[in-house]
Amino acid sequence: LSKQPTTAASGFRDFMPAEVQFRRRTIATILGVFETSGFMPIETPAVERLETLTGKYGDEGEKLIFKVMKRGEELERAREAGVELADMALRYDLTVPTMRFYAHHQAKLPKIFKRYQVGPVWRADRPGRGRYREFYQCDIDVFGSAAPIADAEVVVTLGAALEAVGLGGFTIRISSRKLLEGLTVAYGIPAERKVGFITALDKVDKVGLDGFFAELATLGLGDAVLALVRADFSQADVEAAIRARCAGNESGRAGLAEADAIVRLSRPQLRTGTVAFDPMLARGLDYYTGFIFEIVSADAKGSIAGGGRYDNLASMFQKASVPVTGGSLGIERILLLLEAQAEAAVVTGPQVFVTCWSDDLAEHTVALAALLRQAGIRTDIELAGRKLGQQLAFADSLGCRLAVIAGPDEVAKGVVTVKDLARGEQETLPADGLVAHVRSGL
Amino acid sequence: LSKQPTTAASGFRDFMPAEVQFRRRTIATILGVFETSGFMPIETPAVERLETLTGKYGDEGEKLIFKVMKRGEELERAREAGVELADMALRYDLTVPTMRFYAHHQAKLPKIFKRYQVGPVWRADRPGRGRYREFYQCDIDVFGSAAPIADAEVVVTLGAALEAVGLGGFTIRISSRKLLEGLTVAYGIPAERKVGFITALDKVDKVGLDGFFAELATLGLGDAVLALVRADFSQADVEAAIRARCAGNESGRAGLAEADAIVRLSRPQLRTGTVAFDPMLARGLDYYTGFIFEIVSADAKGSIAGGGRYDNLASMFQKASVPVTGGSLGIERILLLLEAQAEAAVVTGPQVFVTCWSDDLAEHTVALAALLRQAGIRTDIELAGRKLGQQLAFADSLGCRLAVIAGPDEVAKGVVTVKDLARGEQETLPADGLVAHVRSGL
Repeated sequence: LSKQPTTAASGFRDFMPAEVQFRRRTIATILGVFETSGFMPIETPAVERLETLTGKYGDEGEKLIFKVMKRGEELERAREAGVELADMALRYDLTVPTMRFYAHHQAKLPKIFKRYQVGPVWRADRPGRGRYREFYQCDIDVFGSAAPIADAEVVVTLGAALEAVGLGGFTIRISSRKLLEGLTVAYGIPAERKVGFITALDKVDKVGLDGFFAELATLGLGDAVLALVRADFSQADVEAAIRARCAGNESGRAGLAEADAIVRLSRPQLRTGTVAFDPMLARGLDYYTGFIFEIVSADAKGSIAGGGRYDNLASMFQKASVPVTGGSLGIERILLLLEAQAEAAVVTGPQVFVTCWSDDLAEHTVALAALLRQAGIRTDIELAGRKLGQQLAFADSLGCRLAVIAGPDEVAKGVVTVKDLARGEQETLPADGLVAHVRSGL
Repeated sequence: LSKQPTTAASGFRDFMPAEVQFRRRTIATILGVFETSGFMPIETPAVERLETLTGKYGDEGEKLIFKVMKRGEELERAREAGVELADMALRYDLTVPTMRFYAHHQAKLPKIFKRYQVGPVWRADRPGRGRYREFYQCDIDVFGSAAPIADAEVVVTLGAALEAVGLGGFTIRISSRKLLEGLTVAYGIPAERKVGFITALDKVDKVGLDGFFAELATLGLGDAVLALVRADFSQADVEAAIRARCAGNESGRAGLAEADAIVRLSRPQLRTGTVAFDPMLARGLDYYTGFIFEIVSADAKGSIAGGGRYDNLASMFQKASVPVTGGSLGIERILLLLEAQAEAAVVTGPQVFVTCWSDDLAEHTVALAALLRQAGIRTDIELAGRKLGQQLAFADSLGCRLAVIAGPDEVAKGVVTVKDLARGEQETLPADGLVAHVRSGL
């Protein structure tokens, strides 16, 4: 019998105890902030109907969807008919399932519905450094309000979450798709080139201004347009130039007003992070309709959060359009940043180890452990009948601070010995004082 | 554009906020008990290599595995070659992935490794009442010890978890496969009929003794064998009869000694639950090698937990055999039982609602909310610019106890009004006393 591979499948991860605890603790802190801010959890399944996901993520995204095969006779029939062999798929993100959820359950939900969801999504990406096929997303959204205060609520809540996990040195960059729309109008960029312009602007962080101008030159825009763009973006004060340019049309003015309102509402509420209007912000995805934002940290390349307003996305699953604004924490990136900091790898293991003198005293071991556990003290016990020295070494390797020893003499006298594994000191005391003694020794 | 279905796929569930919170709270309580008892969390991916799961669950189980399709060129090649179109699959349980995990990471794990894992598994079962295609499992296992104290550790920990979530009225039924082996030897049941005997015994709860005898009659056992079985199982004290029968061979004696030791070690540690030797217990799965148990509750049909010792399962992925004992809480069933009890459906929503007098006072609303949230008070705010009466009605519908009101006069005077939504009373106080006032009013 040849043994099978024991690694997780390519692009997938096993998590050791310390990693699970660290991820869980960090996520719990974030979810605590969400709930304190009035966001409520929902959950959708890992698996959706294939048709729920197809046509939502563009050609490139669609290729990355993991499909779940039909089964039994249905599979056979599909194979013979030469039609689609899959009927379901693993969720690619949390946004599309949430839109489905909202369309279905809307009548039972509050009129203004603030939801969060955190959980794994799956993408058939080529695995690479820090790129996995199963990773967590962590989203908040506000359904039912078109007001800038709802956009500010998203920004403030995500900022508070980052501050709560100790990533307070962030900047929230804010803009609006309306402003970009106004800008393209002011520059005289034709409608069919707008996406190209926004895509080029989205890369300015990576490629610099010269790269941006070079990219624009490939779009077939006229020289007059290019000269206008170049004039604005080459100013010492780009923001002032863009503000002036946008002020000339309605969409531009609306975008500016929106971005300014969100900055004004959110800025005073951040304790260590900052928020600023950033006319260079574009965001890649094309479904945004107004407010857009990204959060960057001095500690990380790229953004650690992003989002915006997408008032038309709900119409994928329902007739009525619903204003929605939301954002997503790059939770895997955040976990990676925090993991690099201290204490992440420390497992919250047992604090006390109850040794076992011999098989016929096992009942005593189990009873002492039950006492400590009922008092909420994390307690492990000897399960393998090893020699006392080995038991103590094992307790130490688990990270236990104290070991409890009770041999026949101690049992007869109703006492126990508690050994401090770090200091090597030990003390014998009445068994009924064990919990209090251990509490004071931890 | 015809709208798409908005329900979850057949057999899958969406969870509303109150359900998510209730499930999460209950599971957190259980995991707290596990960690207090020295069990450490691990996580394995939702998706495993297909070969990791095939050949592990029998023919019937294998049909229920959800397969993930190959992608791109690899799919095309497989289609042309007429070979398997899937390369991965959704995990069917947590046990097989854990065995793979253990084989791979063993060198980094403690010599006695106590792990727990909780998470969804997927099975392509026909959906039905209370039967889903995505459901949670919740397992604990002890690797590396063959001693009864390890089996008792499993029983005591699961019992403490049930007590902690308020399901204390349970009975833990304990036996051993060695005892069943001894029994078949004593009855003279041939090796090839043993599984049939155990399978029949496993159903005695459902079909009664007559059904059991009828089932045995179909196995082609001789009349002498049937008479022996009938004599034992018809006794007023079946346990005594079986004990006497088992005492005649080594396997039977070992099984009895094992079961008795586990009962003796675990019984004193349970606070409200009970534990008892049960010679009628069989357990369906055929991979158990010793200790077996089931936990039943007066409130539920069937068992709410079960498990046992399976010392050979690790050899699926590694050469060295490893003693393993463990158990699984029927967490979906437990959640269902608890949900029927009070308070499950109560959502932990916002406690305070900060109203918004007008758009130009929105900054004030956001600032008051930030104050309350930073004090850890769950706070929601008005996001839709509605009339005050509508805002208060919405706050009440969210379950808020208090509403904070600050109109232009109040802002000018530096005061706020706090309204008790249940009693209808309100009080105006200095804005800097808001947090203290709200705390005392909740």
